[in-house]
Amino acid sequence: MSKQLDFTLDTLGPCKIPSPMKISSVVGDNMVDYTSDDQCVLYNIDTVFSQPVDGKTLQRITVAGPRPKIYFNPSHVNAGIVTCGGICPGLNTVIRSIVRCLWYSYGVKRIIGIPNGYPGFLPEYNYAPIPLNPDIVDNIHKMGGTVLGTARGGGDRVEEIADSIERMNLNILFCIGGDGTLRGARDVSKECEKRGLKVSVIGIPKTIDNDINLLQRSFGFETAVAKACEAVSSAHVEAKSVHNGIGLVKLMGRHSGFIACNAAIASAEANFVLIPEVKFDLNGENGFLSHLERRLVSRKHAVIIVAEGAGQDYVHADGKDASGNKKLGDIGAFLKEKIRQYFEEKKIPMTLKYIDPSYIIRTQPADPNDSFYCSLLGAHAVHAAMAGKTNTLVSQLNDRYVYIPIDAAVSRRNYVNPEGHLWRDVLETTQQPASMTER
Amino acid sequence: MSKQLDFTLDTLGPCKIPSPMKISSVVGDNMVDYTSDDQCVLYNIDTVFSQPVDGKTLQRITVAGPRPKIYFNPSHVNAGIVTCGGICPGLNTVIRSIVRCLWYSYGVKRIIGIPNGYPGFLPEYNYAPIPLNPDIVDNIHKMGGTVLGTARGGGDRVEEIADSIERMNLNILFCIGGDGTLRGARDVSKECEKRGLKVSVIGIPKTIDNDINLLQRSFGFETAVAKACEAVSSAHVEAKSVHNGIGLVKLMGRHSGFIACNAAIASAEANFVLIPEVKFDLNGENGFLSHLERRLVSRKHAVIIVAEGAGQDYVHADGKDASGNKKLGDIGAFLKEKIRQYFEEKKIPMTLKYIDPSYIIRTQPADPNDSFYCSLLGAHAVHAAMAGKTNTLVSQLNDRYVYIPIDAAVSRRNYVNPEGHLWRDVLETTQQPASMTER
Amino acid sequence: MSKQLDFTLDTLGPCKIPSPMKISSVVGDNMVDYTSDDQCVLYNIDTVFSQPVDGKTLQRITVAGPRPKIYFNPSHVNAGIVTCGGICPGLNTVIRSIVRCLWYSYGVKRIIGIPNGYPGFLPEYNYAPIPLNPDIVDNIHKMGGTVLGTARGGGDRVEEIADSIERMNLNILFCIGGDGTLRGARDVSKECEKRGLKVSVIGIPKTIDNDINLLQRSFGFETAVAKACEAVSSAHVEAKSVHNGIGLVKLMGRHSGFIACNAAIASAEANFVLIPEVKFDLNGENGFLSHLERRLVSRKHAVIIVAEGAGQDYVHADGKDASGNKKLGDIGAFLKEKIRQYFEEKKIPMTLKYIDPSYIIRTQPADPNDSFYCSLLGAHAVHAAMAGKTNTLVSQLNDRYVYIPIDAAVSRRNYVNPEGHLWRDVLETTQQPASMTER
Amino acid sequence: MSKQLDFTLDTLGPCKIPSPMKISSVVGDNMVDYTSDDQCVLYNIDTVFSQPVDGKTLQRITVAGPRPKIYFNPSHVNAGIVTCGGICPGLNTVIRSIVRCLWYSYGVKRIIGIPNGYPGFLPEYNYAPIPLNPDIVDNIHKMGGTVLGTARGGGDRVEEIADSIERMNLNILFCIGGDGTLRGARDVSKECEKRGLKVSVIGIPKTIDNDINLLQRSFGFETAVAKACEAVSSAHVEAKSVHNGIGLVKLMGRHSGFIACNAAIASAEANFVLIPEVKFDLNGENGFLSHLERRLVSRKHAVIIVAEGAGQDYVHADGKDASGNKKLGDIGAFLKEKIRQYFEEKKIPMTLKYIDPSYIIRTQPADPNDSFYCSLLGAHAVHAAMAGKTNTLVSQLNDRYVYIPIDAAVSRRNYVNPEGHLWRDVLETTQQPASMTER
Repeated sequence: MSKQLDFTLDTLGPCKIPSPMKISSVVGDNMVDYTSDDQCVLYNIDTVFSQPVDGKTLQRITVAGPRPKIYFNPSHVNAGIVTCGGICPGLNTVIRSIVRCLWYSYGVKRIIGIPNGYPGFLPEYNYAPIPLNPDIVDNIHKMGGTVLGTARGGGDRVEEIADSIERMNLNILFCIGGDGTLRGARDVSKECEKRGLKVSVIGIPKTIDNDINLLQRSFGFETAVAKACEAVSSAHVEAKSVHNGIGLVKLMGRHSGFIACNAAIASAEANFVLIPEVKFDLNGENGFLSHLERRLVSRKHAVIIVAEGAGQDYVHADGKDASGNKKLGDIGAFLKEKIRQYFEEKKIPMTLKYIDPSYIIRTQPADPNDSFYCSLLGAHAVHAAMAGKTNTLVSQLNDRYVYIPIDAAVSRRNYVNPEGHLWRDVLETTQQPASMTER
Repeated sequence: MSKQLDFTLDTLGPCKIPSPMKISSVVGDNMVDYTSDDQCVLYNIDTVFSQPVDGKTLQRITVAGPRPKIYFNPSHVNAGIVTCGGICPGLNTVIRSIVRCLWYSYGVKRIIGIPNGYPGFLPEYNYAPIPLNPDIVDNIHKMGGTVLGTARGGGDRVEEIADSIERMNLNILFCIGGDGTLRGARDVSKECEKRGLKVSVIGIPKTIDNDINLLQRSFGFETAVAKACEAVSSAHVEAKSVHNGIGLVKLMGRHSGFIACNAAIASAEANFVLIPEVKFDLNGENGFLSHLERRLVSRKHAVIIVAEGAGQDYVHADGKDASGNKKLGDIGAFLKEKIRQYFEEKKIPMTLKYIDPSYIIRTQPADPNDSFYCSLLGAHAVHAAMAGKTNTLVSQLNDRYVYIPIDAAVSRRNYVNPEGHLWRDVLETTQQPASMTER
Repeated sequence: MSKQLDFTLDTLGPCKIPSPMKISSVVGDNMVDYTSDDQCVLYNIDTVFSQPVDGKTLQRITVAGPRPKIYFNPSHVNAGIVTCGGICPGLNTVIRSIVRCLWYSYGVKRIIGIPNGYPGFLPEYNYAPIPLNPDIVDNIHKMGGTVLGTARGGGDRVEEIADSIERMNLNILFCIGGDGTLRGARDVSKECEKRGLKVSVIGIPKTIDNDINLLQRSFGFETAVAKACEAVSSAHVEAKSVHNGIGLVKLMGRHSGFIACNAAIASAEANFVLIPEVKFDLNGENGFLSHLERRLVSRKHAVIIVAEGAGQDYVHADGKDASGNKKLGDIGAFLKEKIRQYFEEKKIPMTLKYIDPSYIIRTQPADPNDSFYCSLLGAHAVHAAMAGKTNTLVSQLNDRYVYIPIDAAVSRRNYVNPEGHLWRDVLETTQQPASMTER
Repeated sequence: MSKQLDFTLDTLGPCKIPSPMKISSVVGDNMVDYTSDDQCVLYNIDTVFSQPVDGKTLQRITVAGPRPKIYFNPSHVNAGIVTCGGICPGLNTVIRSIVRCLWYSYGVKRIIGIPNGYPGFLPEYNYAPIPLNPDIVDNIHKMGGTVLGTARGGGDRVEEIADSIERMNLNILFCIGGDGTLRGARDVSKECEKRGLKVSVIGIPKTIDNDINLLQRSFGFETAVAKACEAVSSAHVEAKSVHNGIGLVKLMGRHSGFIACNAAIASAEANFVLIPEVKFDLNGENGFLSHLERRLVSRKHAVIIVAEGAGQDYVHADGKDASGNKKLGDIGAFLKEKIRQYFEEKKIPMTLKYIDPSYIIRTQPADPNDSFYCSLLGAHAVHAAMAGKTNTLVSQLNDRYVYIPIDAAVSRRNYVNPEGHLWRDVLETTQQPASMTER
């Protein structure tokens, strides 16, 4: 086993306790099976026919699932769940799944929710923990948001969080959140290790933007795309209902334009998509405004999708939000004004309607396929924790559920590749120019 | 390159014509790229840490995408599209995507729809071909069904179909359909080859049941699961609104219980799931009816999902339908009656509501994420055809879009593995017994 | 005041207690006002210009709303709510509104739900009453069905119900149900009066079929029509996706075809509507089957909506259900078979898909406009009860909320008038023949 | 017939041509009937029991419907349809219904759409009329917006419009729009009369705000309320997902708060509703901000709905838009900032999310019940036109479809009565103070 290439996981120690789940370890007995720690899936599987496959360069990832032996005695477990950062569809479904899997599959009965994100650990807020059981979470998957409450920041106050974990006697902690949250989870895990505490810290990556590395798709993303398509349709209706109508929709995507790209392809109603990964000129013969004018003259209406992180060269914003994210300039408002000016100067009458559906999108409950995904992520998080893994993330990669070290996931972001097939499909769908910068 | 292990594709001949798509072949120039025939992805990637990876045993699959050089001169292309078998969400989106990609990306302007499935090729019906262009297909993705019409059967009349292809001078044919349709496509491809006709026959696999081999998920499946969840919710409401209420939902799944399993996990409202892959006893201490009684006594309501192909030992049906599928006995009606009898004999009053939402499910338009998927399948089918591939299927595997030989896909079905993680997750969610057969 | 013509209400006695709602009795002070018992609305307002209006022939109905003085001391009130008969959208919203209005507007804190319909009063079932308060009902309006449970029948066991009311010390009872339930409510009210019990019995009419007299529209009806339209769309997609496709949808409507008519007009996708109020021949030159054939030959597809109570001359059923309703023959299955036979004999190939969406329709939660309506019906029921009215129904008529005596409402049904404008609009929309009986 | 009190209609002249609709004029023959010009409905039906009904004070309104004799020979009719002002749900359904009724019920085959509102009549734009027939409009009711295009203003250029009507030889014009549009229609009707042109001008009132007098509810209103409820739910989810969360939703309602009120009652998730008809203080002990603080302290979250026309004393805007409507100050942005300042000064941390869903709401297609309503409005408009009525509006009042003179409808607006039952129900639902002004 090549330590160097494979993704290896931190664990609290050997698993000696037989799992209370009464399933099979025998393949071929027609009964559902445990997953062994030996099972893995190849990661870097893109290659070429013209060269033989070199087995040594292939990285392997641990397959997720319940283990036949577990680390914790369920009757000694105190589990906590915390949700951090902005809300997104599916948070409640993940919480529900964690609670039900702990309770029904392992018999863990002491489960609490940490209120309002990492600050819920901090003494100054004095929030009371939220007791959780299957009855309490029974219907929460039909509601958007998070029943635990959430907040930005606080993940850097590692020692106080560890103090709080000690005080509450938690030995399992599920952290549901984005980049910053996961870094916090990693640091808390390390701090606990340093203190000799046997605490399993498991991350469930949450990013409506789909921009976390080593994650095929983030939960809530499909629901977000579906709801975003509604806004694009509204923009399309506005644009088509008047002469020279322009519909402009700002969609989420701070660093990565995945929602914008998927919504454009799924709705098939956008004519321009602007994303952070692809630069564009505003002015000039090959700039965005010229192309928009040509579209308007020939077709009398146009629909534009802009990801919130696009065109940040044009808008200025200073500082960071409480999550530590760089503040973004408002590209939507900026474009709206620039377009207005441009056509006013050209004396071309037009009507622009600007839609920002972000809060409507992120407050949706998970749609059924996201619910399915959230349910599995939650259950696999529990299996990882009960088997004593820590500093570990639940993910889906190459169409398999896997466990990966948190560090590997937060080391870089996931981007829309400007040379790749997703952006190619956007260009095919929108028929926008391959490049809108000076040639 | 190991011919033996890799999935190799049939082609009409070498590609010599530069693609009219003006994209890049250079990696690193920040412009979207063509996909070369050399690009592939590893297929059999499930392995174990305890053994070194043997590169020689790994199978490779061709990656889908537009090629820098193509086989057909676009101005000589006559393309046809045929939809066969039962309808499912997304058919119109696939049709739309094929037409738009042919038209806009390649400049192909002669496109027809074959009306009403393979019979549309047969002289006896005398159906007129349906002219297709981007205007005609502009809004069809918002409608369920297929604008081309469909029918079962006819795929075995290979010579007549080939005659018709000759008569219509088609050199590209897109066949959208299930197992039988794809076998027909393969045979038509072979017949054309035998006649020396340069016809590219490309299959787009359609199976609402998700039971086609070498296909990660079939288009329309997610929409079907989402709509199935509505019916499960209805059953749940009925069951909970009366004392001892039972909701029974029959879902699609002739051979494979994927819709049933996914709907159970996504809705989290079913207590029993019966699928073709897992046998169950009706009677006896460990039979389904005893377990149902126990559930009803303890919780006063129960929800059952049964896949249409489950429990076929109990129901008898002879013959085949026009598609050549074995007729199934009506397990839904059977169970409804058996449950009624059982509780009547036990003198336990109960109210059972039976819901069969099949036609409501399969007539839905594709939801946004299915639309996204259908759009890409359609475009990749066009890229394959223009590059002169034939007897080839568009698929998604290991989270990549790929081309595979039709034969490989129709050689066996895709089943829910009774020992695998999907069924395990169903058992976790429903808390139904791991086995309902005599122990 | 003409007792003879006006609708007069039973009351328990004079209202002497000032209402705890702190609103105004003064018109013109810009503060919301109480409604006085003197306020009424004209009922029979259809007339002709050619004759002068004779004021004496006009009937008047009491306007609903909170009274400045009430009959019950809120702190002495024990209120009960019972839901009876089949479920329909909005039941939970009505329950929620009653509980909230009692609690917040009047300060009534002792509220119970009677479980599982009128049988919940009967000693043999021994069901425990369900305590109700605003927290318990907070989210129930988002769920279909009834959280109290429901059952058919039991409304004729008036003395036992009155015994139970005495035992539970109830002085207000809200009965939510159809014809039979309302007759039960009337009889219970009379029995209480006979016993000298001061019990207010208020009915909230529930009939998904919209067939209750003196009720402009029943709650849940609009939601039902909206969901029915989905099934009609599915039938339309099925019919259009094959050559000679027929979609057949059975909709609710035992005696009255309102859902069928409204769904036909709203969806604009049906070609034939069959309702209980309008006879039709099956055979013969002017029979339904001949017309269906003509439609199929000319347009290649057809969509039929049949109300469950239509064509009962053709199907036989004996006996009554537990609600005392005459059992209906299954006209849907009958038509399906007759159509199959007819075209088989004529050797016209066709494909028929039959959809029965009843349970999916009636299990929906109320859509927003129905929720609005249910909220107001519930509140007005509370205002009536607190003011000591009994044997009284909450209704909407001539676009006003009113109180009417139960007897007036249950004395006859509401029908689609075969000469009236609704049926005329159906004929215009479907373009079906004005008559399909022998001429 | 009391000319003084009744609403009497303008007509082009006597109806001498038998209607081509083959329906009955005989009551009792079980066939659908024409509606005679004599049929009417009482209008002012709110009264009191304590006084006898005086027939002489009752106003009567003409009942809508097809007349047995009509004014126009269908083969001579040139009909035009124009949609003006902002878009709202149902426009396309009304257009579709008009076209189908003209075509199928009367045999009128020359129908055009005037493009882009009243400007479509004006020579300077040189827009080409849009030919209309049942095929063209077949699926438009499933799309939001208007296929004819719309624009603000132009209704005051009466002579040019009349010139254009003459040039196009139109003898029927359907004007779908709000207050300004209807005034334009009235003036065009008068101008045609002055010129001796026999042109029927029929208005179909469009106002998403529901603020047109003599109109029970405007088409699209229910769809708007339903979609508005989604935004309120999003605000509720945002507010509940954080500590001290505030959700602020701005809804349509320039002069009348109907959408705000109905959405508040239907969603049951708002704590404050601010509408144009009810003044409120911002500051002071009984001001809005104090009440908001109290709510936040006690419940940790709050949801506010503000109608766009509310609180205009606080925001300043000059000028009018192209429709001639006074421009409104942005009360949403104003409140957002005031709330932020208030809590910052009080050093109470809170998180406010502001949602403006207006364009998403008004671009929806009509939901089924609105579609039903739109279909009937359209058909009744056609019946009025064919019978030679002019300067006439189609409306629903007292739950009947009626014709009223345009002038009567545009003479004043429809408001939420601050003393009436709708506002009372809002106060009951939200539990906001009866008054938020200085006491």
